[in-house]
Amino acid sequence: MDTIEMLRELVIPAQTDMLLLVLDGIGGLPREPGGPTELEAARTPNLDELARLSSCGQLDPIAPGITPGSGPAHLSLFGYDPIKYLIPRGALSAAGIDFPLQKSDVAARANFATIDDEGNITDRRAGRIPTELCAELAALLEEKVSIPDVKVFVKPERDHRAVVVFRGTDLSQNLHDTDPQEVGVPPLAPKPVSTDVKAKRAAEVVSAFLEQVREILKGKQPANMMLLRGFAHPPDIPGMNELYGIKCAAIAVYPMYRGLARLVGMEALDTGDKIEDEFETAVAHKGKYDYFFVHVKPTDSRGEDGDFDAKVAVIEEIDQAIPKLLEFAPDVLVVTGDHSTPARWAAHSWHPVPFILKSEYCRVDAVTEFSENACARGNMGRLPATALLSLMLANANRLAKFGA
Amino acid sequence: MDTIEMLRELVIPAQTDMLLLVLDGIGGLPREPGGPTELEAARTPNLDELARLSSCGQLDPIAPGITPGSGPAHLSLFGYDPIKYLIPRGALSAAGIDFPLQKSDVAARANFATIDDEGNITDRRAGRIPTELCAELAALLEEKVSIPDVKVFVKPERDHRAVVVFRGTDLSQNLHDTDPQEVGVPPLAPKPVSTDVKAKRAAEVVSAFLEQVREILKGKQPANMMLLRGFAHPPDIPGMNELYGIKCAAIAVYPMYRGLARLVGMEALDTGDKIEDEFETAVAHKGKYDYFFVHVKPTDSRGEDGDFDAKVAVIEEIDQAIPKLLEFAPDVLVVTGDHSTPARWAAHSWHPVPFILKSEYCRVDAVTEFSENACARGNMGRLPATALLSLMLANANRLAKFGA
Repeated sequence: MDTIEMLRELVIPAQTDMLLLVLDGIGGLPREPGGPTELEAARTPNLDELARLSSCGQLDPIAPGITPGSGPAHLSLFGYDPIKYLIPRGALSAAGIDFPLQKSDVAARANFATIDDEGNITDRRAGRIPTELCAELAALLEEKVSIPDVKVFVKPERDHRAVVVFRGTDLSQNLHDTDPQEVGVPPLAPKPVSTDVKAKRAAEVVSAFLEQVREILKGKQPANMMLLRGFAHPPDIPGMNELYGIKCAAIAVYPMYRGLARLVGMEALDTGDKIEDEFETAVAHKGKYDYFFVHVKPTDSRGEDGDFDAKVAVIEEIDQAIPKLLEFAPDVLVVTGDHSTPARWAAHSWHPVPFILKSEYCRVDAVTEFSENACARGNMGRLPATALLSLMLANANRLAKFGA
Repeated sequence: MDTIEMLRELVIPAQTDMLLLVLDGIGGLPREPGGPTELEAARTPNLDELARLSSCGQLDPIAPGITPGSGPAHLSLFGYDPIKYLIPRGALSAAGIDFPLQKSDVAARANFATIDDEGNITDRRAGRIPTELCAELAALLEEKVSIPDVKVFVKPERDHRAVVVFRGTDLSQNLHDTDPQEVGVPPLAPKPVSTDVKAKRAAEVVSAFLEQVREILKGKQPANMMLLRGFAHPPDIPGMNELYGIKCAAIAVYPMYRGLARLVGMEALDTGDKIEDEFETAVAHKGKYDYFFVHVKPTDSRGEDGDFDAKVAVIEEIDQAIPKLLEFAPDVLVVTGDHSTPARWAAHSWHPVPFILKSEYCRVDAVTEFSENACARGNMGRLPATALLSLMLANANRLAKFGA
């Protein structure tokens, strides 16, 4: 019995609300041994005060030592076993742009890329072309490509990224990526992962598509080719709303997180781009939902950039906006991250993330600082991230007793 | 591989004894934010001294955020996966009064209740009639009820609670409760959970029984009806004695805990009602058993009452009796709870329970206080309660090495 099965049997209604604030990639590392982490270096009086009033601990997004992608890291926070409910990239991207995927569709994440005269890749991201050009080229491809019995959708995402959806009968998602993840080599030919007819058919369709793409984009350097990865049908995930009888809202700027939230039954609310805008959106919708997921992206972006000081600055910016969020005054408030993105590592890492849980019924501990090391001494201990939803529902008085 | 399967392969004999002291519902919460919990408020020099000499930590009875019933919470402490070995209420109650359930019997927990002239429930507990009246009415029902091919036993438990056992061929436990868990409505008709013949037959038998009960109890207000729940065959649980080659004794006052202990292969020893009596019983049986389970109930009762001060007083009473228990001087001593029952919540809760383990081979940590927050800083960390038995057996030198 996994968490979901147990919770769905125990869940009871209540007039309480929960707010999960995810600071993407919040966990960090010292710039040099002995120094403070980004969180420790940042001046965060508001987050520290929250920690003082909370029960604190650490979460492992997947398992100790495992570095998560954004999809599984968020699914864990929402209570889903991230190994059982793996969302392939294509489906995630389609959800992110709000494309209504049908059950038999096959979606792929696409990069516009640059190839040379020999057909070898020289830039996997086509010099990160602007979103406007991406949209123009996507529309061109969608108009011109023609494959018998298959409808192909090409939709822009952001910068050089797009989504391609193949709609037809008898197409399987069981295809290898065509993106070789390196330059100096040609794109890979679409190959079936399995030996079934539908995978073979899908490989033929994608081959035909990519031949036409190459023709249509000829001369359109730097965006003269497309690389595809993460072929996927829409995933079959039971929604949090159905599972737990809670109305869920997502407040996120980036399409992927909005899409992910929709995949698990949340409504993605319209919001401004700034952190304070997101917090204001939450406050404005108080009372209309039982569960709010608020996603803040720049912590991760600055970590990925390897920019320690910029990440510190973003954390301080978030801290300054916290009083706005506190106007919401949820019955259960959690502040955490989906994973760590230490500037020193310039990528997602495996380190656990600190978390604080504040409610009328939490056991407040001696922690008075929101940071990796301080929270590691909190009385919540080290937990798998999938345990967080159980704790939030329990503190919201939404779970009945297990067994007599 | 669950804990049981691993342990039964590793277990070896030894001349050591183990004692598990369960302070029912010991975990608590501050009366008001910032204040001490019941355990922190209580003066407990003896328990604190034990903590100083022990390895300390926290146990999750079922999983983080999950509030356990008494049955699963205890099974966890005994090393059983509480989700796999779920004991329905009826079987638990039958075991609690030492009723020798046969394999095909169906037992149910019964409440004497009050219904009005329209047949609606006005009191689910019949004004908590005294045990003597309960026994009298149970005997009356057992004598008068007559159902072809079925023998019905009606046995008093405590106050308004009784156990009903249906003995016949082809009866299934797959029935919904007849207790609607609310007043102002009539009792529910017995309905089969499944569509099989045995469940249908059981529903008919229970219907016939309840019709006769209504006739026989007519005019016997407040106990003029019976509500049934937790229909169950005896559960099939391998005993700790067989699994681990340890002779196990249970010292408990309340029938349910004695019954539960018997279900897992313990002998329930005769003991007096007071905490000190129970500790004396343990001391008196030193050397006759390898594993002692000592259960103290009033901590939970006072928590359920919502009486913070009374719970504090009970904890202090237990602490005063600890020197008596220490005369036992077990090789491995554990003090913990089965779950938390904060007076503030006036019910079982999901919060982890503190535990201390003292043995010649434990790693003593810096904790010098037996309380929720102090033990959370202990070096045992936060563990599932099912891990406790492994730790006790290991410290008792009763487990061989795993693998070469």
